[in-house]
Amino acid sequence: MKSAKISEAVVRRLPIYLQALNELHSREIGTVSSQELGQRLDLNPAQIRKDLAYFGEFGRKGIGYDVIYLIEKIRQILKVNQTINVALVGAGNLGLALCNYNKYSKDNMKITAVFDDNPQKIGTKINNLLVQPMDELVETVKQGEIRIGIITVPAVEAQNVANRFVEAGIEGLLNFAPGILRVPEEVRVQNADFTRELLSLAYYLNQDEEEDEDGSTLD
Amino acid sequence: MKSAKISEAVVRRLPIYLQALNELHSREIGTVSSQELGQRLDLNPAQIRKDLAYFGEFGRKGIGYDVIYLIEKIRQILKVNQTINVALVGAGNLGLALCNYNKYSKDNMKITAVFDDNPQKIGTKINNLLVQPMDELVETVKQGEIRIGIITVPAVEAQNVANRFVEAGIEGLLNFAPGILRVPEEVRVQNADFTRELLSLAYYLNQDEEEDEDGSTLD
Repeated sequence: MKSAKISEAVVRRLPIYLQALNELHSREIGTVSSQELGQRLDLNPAQIRKDLAYFGEFGRKGIGYDVIYLIEKIRQILKVNQTINVALVGAGNLGLALCNYNKYSKDNMKITAVFDDNPQKIGTKINNLLVQPMDELVETVKQGEIRIGIITVPAVEAQNVANRFVEAGIEGLLNFAPGILRVPEEVRVQNADFTRELLSLAYYLNQDEEEDEDGSTLD
Repeated sequence: MKSAKISEAVVRRLPIYLQALNELHSREIGTVSSQELGQRLDLNPAQIRKDLAYFGEFGRKGIGYDVIYLIEKIRQILKVNQTINVALVGAGNLGLALCNYNKYSKDNMKITAVFDDNPQKIGTKINNLLVQPMDELVETVKQGEIRIGIITVPAVEAQNVANRFVEAGIEGLLNFAPGILRVPEEVRVQNADFTRELLSLAYYLNQDEEEDEDGSTLD
C-alpha cells in the first residue's frame, strides 16, 4: 500500500486545504502562504507545511504555494483528478440531500446510482437518477465501475447493505448509519454518523455550574 | 479550561466507545475487556485503555470494564448525562433527516427548535416542532437554553446563520455546509460537511493502474 504511513489526521485535512484553495482560486488569487492558509483555516502554518511535505515539495520559500498547482496536486493525492462513481443506498431525506448536494459539487465524485428497497420509491427519479431495487445493486455497481458506496439506511439495515456492496467489489463506504460495519480489510469505511459529531461537540461545551465530582479545575 | 490537554482524536473516539457500550448493554452484556472492545471497533486495545485512562481508572485488570459504569462515565465526560438542547437551521431534506434521526435517538441531545427563512416552510411542523422564522432565532435560543446549533443551509448562507447563533450565545455549532465559519474563539465548531468525508475516503481507494508520476510504490 502506497502512503500507508500518512496518518488519517493528515488525510482528513487535505479536503479542507482543497476547499480553501478552490475558494482562493475562485477569487482569482494566484499564490498563498502557509500563514495565510493557516489563518483562513484556523490551523497552525507549520502543520500545513508539514502535512503537504509528506507528498512533495509544493511551496517556495518566501513566495508560498501556487494555488492552481497545489489544487492539482491535492486532487491527485486524493485521486479526485479522475471521475469516481458513487452509489447511494437509501432514498430518504438524507439520501435526497446528498444527491442534491452532489449535483452542484465541483469535484469529480458523482453519484451515478441510487437504490432503495421501498417499492414506493423504486422507479421514482432523483436528479435524473432512477431509484433502483436493491437486487440490482451488485450488477449495477460492477457494470457502472462504482467504487464508493454511501449508506443512508436505518442502522439495522446498514450491515446488509454493506454486504451487498462488498459482494459487488466496492472499495470504500461512507456510512451515515450509527454502528460499526463489518467489512473485509481491503474495504475502507468512513463514518459520517452525525450523532458522533454531536456527542463529541458536547464535550467542548462550557463546563456547567453543577457539582463536579472530582472538583478538579486544571486551568 | 478543563481537559484542554485531551486531543481531539481521543474526544472523537469517545462517542464510538459509547455506541459500542450501549449496544453491549442492550444485549445485556455486563463487562467487556479492552480486547473485546478493540475487536468490535477495529481499534487497538492499548489505544482504548490509554484513551479512557485520561479520564480515570475505569477498568479492572483481568476483569475489564463494567459496561453500565463505563457508559455512565463516558456520558459524564461528554456532558450528555444532562439534557442538551439543540437548534437546527435549514428545514430542507438534510434538516428533516436530522430531526427524524434525533427523534429516535437515545442520548440526551434534543433538537428543540427549527428555523428557516423560506416563508413556505415557516409555520409547518417537523416532528411537532414548528418551523420558526430566522428573526426569532436569537430570542428562542436564549429563552430555550439552547447550547448547540446545527447548520444545514447552503454554503453562502452558513456564515450569516452562524452569526445569529453567536449573537444568541451559542456554545457549539455543527456545520453541514462546506466552507469555514468565522466565530469567536469560545464557540466550538465541528464540521460535518460530507464532501470532506467523501474526498478523504477517495484517498484510500485502490491505486489506479494509470501512470504514476513519481513512480514510487512503497508497498
